[in-house]
Amino acid sequence: MRIIETIAEMQQAADNWRAHGERIGFVPTMGFLHKGHLDLMRTARRLSSQVVISIFVNPTQFAPHEDFDSYPRDMQRDLDFAREVGVDAVFTPNLHEMYPEGFQTYVTVTEVSKNLCGRSRPVFFRGVATVVSKLFHAVKPHLSVFGEKDFQQLVTIRRMVRDMNMDVEIIGHPIVREEDGLAMSSRNAYLRPEERPVALRLGRALALAQDLVSSGERQVDAILGKVSEFIAGDGAAKIDYAQICDPNTLEDIAHIGGPALLALAVWVGKTRLIDNRILQPSG
Amino acid sequence: MRIIETIAEMQQAADNWRAHGERIGFVPTMGFLHKGHLDLMRTARRLSSQVVISIFVNPTQFAPHEDFDSYPRDMQRDLDFAREVGVDAVFTPNLHEMYPEGFQTYVTVTEVSKNLCGRSRPVFFRGVATVVSKLFHAVKPHLSVFGEKDFQQLVTIRRMVRDMNMDVEIIGHPIVREEDGLAMSSRNAYLRPEERPVALRLGRALALAQDLVSSGERQVDAILGKVSEFIAGDGAAKIDYAQICDPNTLEDIAHIGGPALLALAVWVGKTRLIDNRILQPSG
Repeated sequence: MRIIETIAEMQQAADNWRAHGERIGFVPTMGFLHKGHLDLMRTARRLSSQVVISIFVNPTQFAPHEDFDSYPRDMQRDLDFAREVGVDAVFTPNLHEMYPEGFQTYVTVTEVSKNLCGRSRPVFFRGVATVVSKLFHAVKPHLSVFGEKDFQQLVTIRRMVRDMNMDVEIIGHPIVREEDGLAMSSRNAYLRPEERPVALRLGRALALAQDLVSSGERQVDAILGKVSEFIAGDGAAKIDYAQICDPNTLEDIAHIGGPALLALAVWVGKTRLIDNRILQPSG
Repeated sequence: MRIIETIAEMQQAADNWRAHGERIGFVPTMGFLHKGHLDLMRTARRLSSQVVISIFVNPTQFAPHEDFDSYPRDMQRDLDFAREVGVDAVFTPNLHEMYPEGFQTYVTVTEVSKNLCGRSRPVFFRGVATVVSKLFHAVKPHLSVFGEKDFQQLVTIRRMVRDMNMDVEIIGHPIVREEDGLAMSSRNAYLRPEERPVALRLGRALALAQDLVSSGERQVDAILGKVSEFIAGDGAAKIDYAQICDPNTLEDIAHIGGPALLALAVWVGKTRLIDNRILQPSG
């Protein structure tokens, strides 16, 4: 497995693979890999002849008060995981390589990034679109795999790729969960043991919402009221948002008339967790 | 010569050339080609095995009050010129192909686009960076040639390419002038015969400024005072800006201590003309 630290070397490797007819699959990550990432990597492995992952904690998607400095890192473990899955190259540029002095170019996806996480994290999606553009230009992948846990991120990347004519196929991967149902996230490492049962409420609230819809409930307000009460009624968690949206535009809807995204962001102690599910009126 | 109207077909052609080891040179244009464009195309021809030009009048770089609708167009003549230079493919996407419904992604180069034309045309460089990104993703060039007449555009594109890790070599091409010294521009077609002598003042003012610098003048205010008087002292022209800047950051400078950009934008009647020159203290 190659470890590549510079953009120039990454591009050279990609050009070389492409010249030999290889198909490059790419999984961008911020490291501290968990089983969710491993599933994305396995999907890339299955669909490509050369698999690249990137490990880069991207400062432009963190606001000043957020957890960039304390974001968990464990490069050695990450490399072991990557080897285990059969990754061909790990691209690990340093900060200066990705954001040299004078850096000033940003990619903005204006509409789909406004709602949901865009409200409480206004710089987040600009940072994500910018770094993913940069990574795509470095890795030159044929396809790239993103988890559906960051549903708004996936919608933003799909829109960017289409709008910018990027010749990259975007593959969405279903949310991977721990055995107890908690959606996998590097930030789960922040949870204290006594917070875990509270964290599990997110996944259960999604199931509760689907049950309501399956029983015929179509009023978004009614569903969100019950979801919020279930998660935070006792004050053990604090809801950042609980919204039901059109899964393509991410605009709020009032009535459920087709597949609808229920997206949650919840503070459990000092940890912000997200989770989501497509509610199916016919399911 | 191939005429390609869709992004998918353009990408397929580019992939095919790249798979055969061809070197793709690209000249983006808004059509209504003049001898300046032909020189850019010849430069691309000399440096590449496959030359692509695009002809696309890009709406996102025009403000609502600007001349998008009246911008001069002559596709048949443009295609004749392209054939004459030996262009291999002309990429002419339509508006809907480039900006489909729901389009919402923009590339912004924040600093170098602020001064000069960025002041009077605040949406211009966002439109340019966005469309050039899109064109690069469609044409997949190894190199792309831009004229130095649009100096700020060239600096913006260079910065974008570097910041975004785009694997494209940017070639700057010296300003091409008519026999009488007027910098070539599609917008010169707007000039009425009696406006032409006034338009020539831009090029002459650049020479005057170099003479002042060669004679030892280092004060930017003094140089700009004489330049402005020369161009617009009699009221026959109206200066949008006349500025002397660092050629890399495009920030204004007060004293000339090395090569410095003198950039002009001047209204002659209803036509806005630009011109520039690097002032050389040692030249």
